[in-house]
Amino acid sequence: MKIINKISELKTITKELKKDDKIIGFVPTMGALHEGHLKLVKKAKKISDFVIVSIFINPTQFGKNEDLDKYPRDINGDSQKLKDLGVDIVFFPDAEEIYPENYQTVVSLSKITKGLCGDRREGHFDGVATIVLKLFNIVTPNFAFFGLKDYQQFVLIKQLVKDLNLDIKIIGIEIVREEDGLAMSSRNLNLTKSGRKKAGLINKVIKSAISKFKSKVENFENSDFIIEYIQNNLEKEGFTIDYIELRDRKNLITVHSINEDSMIFIAVFIDNVRLIDNFSFGEIYD
Amino acid sequence: MKIINKISELKTITKELKKDDKIIGFVPTMGALHEGHLKLVKKAKKISDFVIVSIFINPTQFGKNEDLDKYPRDINGDSQKLKDLGVDIVFFPDAEEIYPENYQTVVSLSKITKGLCGDRREGHFDGVATIVLKLFNIVTPNFAFFGLKDYQQFVLIKQLVKDLNLDIKIIGIEIVREEDGLAMSSRNLNLTKSGRKKAGLINKVIKSAISKFKSKVENFENSDFIIEYIQNNLEKEGFTIDYIELRDRKNLITVHSINEDSMIFIAVFIDNVRLIDNFSFGEIYD
Repeated sequence: MKIINKISELKTITKELKKDDKIIGFVPTMGALHEGHLKLVKKAKKISDFVIVSIFINPTQFGKNEDLDKYPRDINGDSQKLKDLGVDIVFFPDAEEIYPENYQTVVSLSKITKGLCGDRREGHFDGVATIVLKLFNIVTPNFAFFGLKDYQQFVLIKQLVKDLNLDIKIIGIEIVREEDGLAMSSRNLNLTKSGRKKAGLINKVIKSAISKFKSKVENFENSDFIIEYIQNNLEKEGFTIDYIELRDRKNLITVHSINEDSMIFIAVFIDNVRLIDNFSFGEIYD
Repeated sequence: MKIINKISELKTITKELKKDDKIIGFVPTMGALHEGHLKLVKKAKKISDFVIVSIFINPTQFGKNEDLDKYPRDINGDSQKLKDLGVDIVFFPDAEEIYPENYQTVVSLSKITKGLCGDRREGHFDGVATIVLKLFNIVTPNFAFFGLKDYQQFVLIKQLVKDLNLDIKIIGIEIVREEDGLAMSSRNLNLTKSGRKKAGLINKVIKSAISKFKSKVENFENSDFIIEYIQNNLEKEGFTIDYIELRDRKNLITVHSINEDSMIFIAVFIDNVRLIDNFSFGEIYD
């Protein structure tokens, strides 16, 4: 496995790969890799000839008062994990390499970034769309893999690829959860021990709400009631709610009646760490 | 020569060309082709294996009160001219093909779009950057050719390509002028006969200012004086000045002392038609 810091060096390799008709699989990450990331990498390995993982903590997708400085970093641990999985190249550039002096281009999507994290994290999705486009142009992948925990990001990237006429298949990979149901996230590393213990309640409370809906418990056919139930139960445990919303998984439009495409989207703070998650009603209908 | 309307059809061809290592030369246009465009095409023919010209009047680069509806159209005449020059493909999509339902991605450059046409034409350069990026992704050219009449656009596209890590060489082609010195432009077709006659004065007045600078006529070492001279002489002929500015050709920064990189940028209205042009002091120093 090769660790590459320079765009030009990586481009030389990807050009050769394209010439040889190799299928390039790409997993963009911000490092501090957990089982969720590794699931993306394993899928990439399965269907690609050559797998490239990028590790870049992209400053432009963090808001002013967000956790850029505190975002966990572990390049040595990450490298070992990726090597063990047979990754071909880790692309690990510094910020100066990605955003040199006089850099000034921003990519924005208008509709898909309305609501949910888009409304709470100013500039976040512009930062995401821009860095992902740049990485796509550098890596020129056939497949790119994204975790479905960041569901709005996944829909955004699919739209970006469609809008800009790129030939890249975007593959979403199911959320990997800890034993207590907490969605894996690099930010979980920033939780205190007690915060980490509590964080499992997000999954527990939402699963309980969905199960009440499924067993037709009184009032639980009403989406407002479901959201209120989740909110009350998490708030009393000390969570600060950023949002809890019911939306359609295909287009992220807010819905009030529940069907197989409905998803609960949630963002909460605990220990000043912001955690997001989402839950589909699909399994009830499958 | 093939005229293609569909993105997918063109992509099938460009993928084959890339596989065969063919050099693709690309000339993006809005049609109503004049000698300026044809000079780009001739240059493309000279250094490429395969030449693609797009004709697309991009609605998103026109402001609300601009001349989208009045922009000249002549697809039959254009096709004949391009066929005569040995162009391989004309890409002539409709707006629905380029911006399908739910389209929502915009590419913006922050610095290069400040001043000049960027300040006067709201959203214009976002529209330009976005359509050019889309066309680049569809055509996948090795070389793309732009006229230097739209000088700010030329600098913008070079920055876009650099910022987004594209492997496309942007080639700027000198302005082609009518016999009286008017820069060729599709919009010249919208001038009245008297307007067209007057329009030649833009070149005449600015050349006269530059020549006065060259021969060290009193006060003409002063850039404010040069601009004032041009403004007065054009206003008294009935032109409405949009801007006259002196900037550095490399970075478009406003300058006050003149050297070989200085350029005069001008935009004027005549007959409600907006004409732009630019003039370099370089020849004095060459």
